[in-house]
Amino acid sequence: MFQVIGERINTSRKKVQAAVADRDAEYIREDVKKQQEAGADFIDVNAGARIGHEKEDMKWLLNTIQPVAIVPLCLDSPDPAILEMAYDMVDRTPMINSISLEKDRFDTMMPFLKGKECKIVALCMEDDGMPLSSDDIVARAQKLVKELESIGLKQDDIYIDPLVQPISTDSTKGNMVLDAVRQIKKQYPKVHITGGLSNISYGLPERKIINRTFVTLMMDAGMDSAIIDPLDSKIMATIRTADMLLGRDNFCMTYLKGVRSGVIKS
Amino acid sequence: MFQVIGERINTSRKKVQAAVADRDAEYIREDVKKQQEAGADFIDVNAGARIGHEKEDMKWLLNTIQPVAIVPLCLDSPDPAILEMAYDMVDRTPMINSISLEKDRFDTMMPFLKGKECKIVALCMEDDGMPLSSDDIVARAQKLVKELESIGLKQDDIYIDPLVQPISTDSTKGNMVLDAVRQIKKQYPKVHITGGLSNISYGLPERKIINRTFVTLMMDAGMDSAIIDPLDSKIMATIRTADMLLGRDNFCMTYLKGVRSGVIKS
Repeated sequence: MFQVIGERINTSRKKVQAAVADRDAEYIREDVKKQQEAGADFIDVNAGARIGHEKEDMKWLLNTIQPVAIVPLCLDSPDPAILEMAYDMVDRTPMINSISLEKDRFDTMMPFLKGKECKIVALCMEDDGMPLSSDDIVARAQKLVKELESIGLKQDDIYIDPLVQPISTDSTKGNMVLDAVRQIKKQYPKVHITGGLSNISYGLPERKIINRTFVTLMMDAGMDSAIIDPLDSKIMATIRTADMLLGRDNFCMTYLKGVRSGVIKS
Repeated sequence: MFQVIGERINTSRKKVQAAVADRDAEYIREDVKKQQEAGADFIDVNAGARIGHEKEDMKWLLNTIQPVAIVPLCLDSPDPAILEMAYDMVDRTPMINSISLEKDRFDTMMPFLKGKECKIVALCMEDDGMPLSSDDIVARAQKLVKELESIGLKQDDIYIDPLVQPISTDSTKGNMVLDAVRQIKKQYPKVHITGGLSNISYGLPERKIINRTFVTLMMDAGMDSAIIDPLDSKIMATIRTADMLLGRDNFCMTYLKGVRSGVIKS
């Protein structure tokens, strides 16, 4: 079934930033509990927004969250020093968010990841920018898989983010990423596909229906994870329904549970 | 772009049946106008529910609808005698709904269709029942295309209905039809895929979200038409959004029009 990476614990969100600044543990724990109840499979933790405070904020967040965490955390920072500290603090094998093919990020993350047990989000980003075609996305994914396997990561631990781009700028951007995901999953059936979805609707009105419809298309192509807000019940309902329609929900049990809990509504 | 066959003018719907019984032309015309304004590309006309009255009801319906019809009609009857009369009454090349591989229907419809200019809905149904696998659907579609081509129909005029079956009875029924549609479109890129969608959700609660999510998956597989209620704004919004995401809506114009008219809402 689809794996949801809950995106809410991020200091770029105003309320989370305020709670972190005030060391309001109750607020953070409640948010984490709600994400878990809503079906988050990972809780992303990003403390990057208060410049100069990332290390202490990440430490406080992890200490605050761990007593209530029943799912693994997704440690989200570009800084290997922060990730090293965070990795040592967590009880459960975490997801690391992220590595890319940008030289600085790649060169610092590879030694950090070597020999570590973790799941890794791998962005199809290079120094010259976003990918320009399906083949470009696939080629970047191939490089990432090859490099990550070379330092001991298993395909099942790799979560490729193909980098969704706005459909408003170019009507081919949807098919570009859908085709790439199909190719990557064909070549590496065990590698996961993840990422944010909301870039697809950048610049357009009524964005949420675009994001929901897009996740359905992406799931058909092979996306099996996304970084989303699990408290957005409409996108969660869509994901549960698509999982059922794609044959991943025996006896429709998760769907029916979603209906009973009130998350899934027509 | 996706072609919507508006399903509302069907005497199995209570209000339509009453309007037909009362010869309430105003009601019927208003309904047709609303379907057209909502984006119907064809108006299905089915007069089968008042037993013994199909011929006169169909005649009255066509005479009533034609003055307001700005899109072609879809003449919906199992009876070639009714279809013959209806075919002669319409101004614009109609769609005929339907032929199947069931012996009686096939043997009566083939002579009717021979040499006629029309679009045809072709159901993957045989006398032994619904198809049991993707390959079965594909084989039936192949037979239908071959037979219909042999009497002069073009692939672009053939609308294959792969017969959607309930996911509640078997969790593979979604993938079965999705895979079949992919294969049919690969083999016959010009043949259209159509059909009803609501069977997929039979036996489950909150059916409309299932139908909406399913049409998105089917569109990704290659479905480019469906028999639906164009006044169901949520499914229409999903179809417009999926068309945009699949690169069939230049400059997002149809999407933006849908937002402005209030049909597309997050």
